[in-house]
Amino acid sequence: MPSGRSRRTSSVGSEFVLIRLLQAQAARPDRQVFKGIGDDTAILKTSSDQWTLITTDLLAEGVHFDPATSSYDDIGYRAAIANLSDIAAMGGTPRFMLVAIAIPPTCSTEQIQRLYRGMMQAADPYRVCLVGGDTSASKSGLFLSITLTGTVQPRRTLLRSGARVGDRLYVTGTLGDSRAGLDLLTATARAGPAKLRPAYTRFLLARHHRPSARIAEGQWLVKHGLSGAAIDLSDGLTGDLRHLCEESGVGAEVLAGSLPISPACRAYALAHGRDSQQIGLQGGEDYELLFTVPRRKQEQFERLAANTDFCFTCIGSITPKRLGLRLRTATGTTQPLPATSYEHFLRPS
Amino acid sequence: MPSGRSRRTSSVGSEFVLIRLLQAQAARPDRQVFKGIGDDTAILKTSSDQWTLITTDLLAEGVHFDPATSSYDDIGYRAAIANLSDIAAMGGTPRFMLVAIAIPPTCSTEQIQRLYRGMMQAADPYRVCLVGGDTSASKSGLFLSITLTGTVQPRRTLLRSGARVGDRLYVTGTLGDSRAGLDLLTATARAGPAKLRPAYTRFLLARHHRPSARIAEGQWLVKHGLSGAAIDLSDGLTGDLRHLCEESGVGAEVLAGSLPISPACRAYALAHGRDSQQIGLQGGEDYELLFTVPRRKQEQFERLAANTDFCFTCIGSITPKRLGLRLRTATGTTQPLPATSYEHFLRPS
Repeated sequence: MPSGRSRRTSSVGSEFVLIRLLQAQAARPDRQVFKGIGDDTAILKTSSDQWTLITTDLLAEGVHFDPATSSYDDIGYRAAIANLSDIAAMGGTPRFMLVAIAIPPTCSTEQIQRLYRGMMQAADPYRVCLVGGDTSASKSGLFLSITLTGTVQPRRTLLRSGARVGDRLYVTGTLGDSRAGLDLLTATARAGPAKLRPAYTRFLLARHHRPSARIAEGQWLVKHGLSGAAIDLSDGLTGDLRHLCEESGVGAEVLAGSLPISPACRAYALAHGRDSQQIGLQGGEDYELLFTVPRRKQEQFERLAANTDFCFTCIGSITPKRLGLRLRTATGTTQPLPATSYEHFLRPS
Repeated sequence: MPSGRSRRTSSVGSEFVLIRLLQAQAARPDRQVFKGIGDDTAILKTSSDQWTLITTDLLAEGVHFDPATSSYDDIGYRAAIANLSDIAAMGGTPRFMLVAIAIPPTCSTEQIQRLYRGMMQAADPYRVCLVGGDTSASKSGLFLSITLTGTVQPRRTLLRSGARVGDRLYVTGTLGDSRAGLDLLTATARAGPAKLRPAYTRFLLARHHRPSARIAEGQWLVKHGLSGAAIDLSDGLTGDLRHLCEESGVGAEVLAGSLPISPACRAYALAHGRDSQQIGLQGGEDYELLFTVPRRKQEQFERLAANTDFCFTCIGSITPKRLGLRLRTATGTTQPLPATSYEHFLRPS
């Protein structure tokens, strides 16, 4: 997950902004650091022919995962994907992983084995190598910290800060599925099975438990030099678009009607009286990529993309900073994008 | 701290051995990995003229630190030293740090600022650069995960696995001070101030709160090619000697009378009816280096060491594996070294 990004919860939210500033203050200038705190990963100019990406991520029980609604395999899988997704957002190739884990007395060896199995299932397709870690006791709750390194060719990477006014905004895949899947899990736990076609339920749960990291898409964007800026969607479109715009010093306009919402997510929203567009805007942990394409490259991008299996959707454009973040509705009116984003806080305690 | 080493506590101790096996199983062979799980850091052959060290570490409130007995500055300082010490044990140069932190609602921004200040105070002398991290909420207790990278020249590094029969065993500094300092803190909390000269109390508390990482010593050993194997003392001499011997496939004999115990630690032991030798053998978190010197290089080592400010003490020798780990007493008798080592579990709950 992000290099220095805050995860908000209602209780400590405001403090995290300060901590981020603090982290930025503690960072000293270094000739080998191309990008430190403030992007999905740090970028280190480690050699003349290859740069190193590095990201770390701490997942807490009851905040990022809940063993009551996820198997340990799935918790491990999602944790690895969260890190792989950060490498994807830079257009990099993942390489080495370290896993530190604090285990409460209530956790069995089998559960921990499953956690590792899930992590390795997510990492194996990319030939990621587990090279280290740490194990500790925890007096309360399972904590999992993953560090992942990756590589890019020098300067052949995607940054949050590369968006320019006029660029087109794109996303991979569909939005809101993971959130709908999570809601189904907690709704099921609270109020019995939801009225949804079993195939849709399975799809949404799979998208929550086993999301994809868009490694190939990120590499493709870098290879063709088609994207100006990118970020992965872990906090939800609204929150992560805000991060991208802040780092780039721009605004953005999202076309409400263009958001890629899966049929399953639409059906879920309908069955539960929810607004699928809202889920798409705010639902977190989709691990899709949000990226920009300069207007002059859009035609080339669309042409090349048509020859791939990738799923890209244009959802809006980059505007001047003074216009802020806006949502353009089907009727043509605009409204400010709500400031809220996904909270990694699964259930009220 | 260690790459893949377990930290034992009474409640989950036995499971950690399994997890270590599991981590080792999950590690796939990779041509860039010189050393994966099983040493103080992983060693990656990242370029032809420089190799990368990487280590990660998860510290849990109530297990590795206790805000009731340590300031947040000191907690941060010690956490950074634990990682710097792993780089020291490889003879490396520390480079980049990432800090992930899970913050409970009870923690104030000021406390977190102090934590970072302490970390940077420990890291600044080595010009370590903070390049990333993650912040999260925690529902219970503060968790801190540090990832540190370093560099060595290809093959110019110290491994746990390099000890050979006949090698001399050395340690840096003095042993047991950190443990004595911790005991003073908890004894103070429990039964009023200990009867100890104030200068001794200050010394032991400083050694607990502000230990040193033996970076210069490790680099010196590598530079002169004088050491066969090394490990840093985080679990205590007995525990870490066991790790070194296991990785090298050897035994060891420690001369009880040769252990470097500080006057303060001796005075503390006397005042509290403790055995200072036992504290030296088992006290953890000294972050001194334990290393071997081949017999044929011992004279050269002693001659060169005499011209430095470093404090090295010969405490025994490497023996065949079948002899196990033994302690030779002042009277010349030998006994097995006790299997117990320092438990990172500050106070009974």
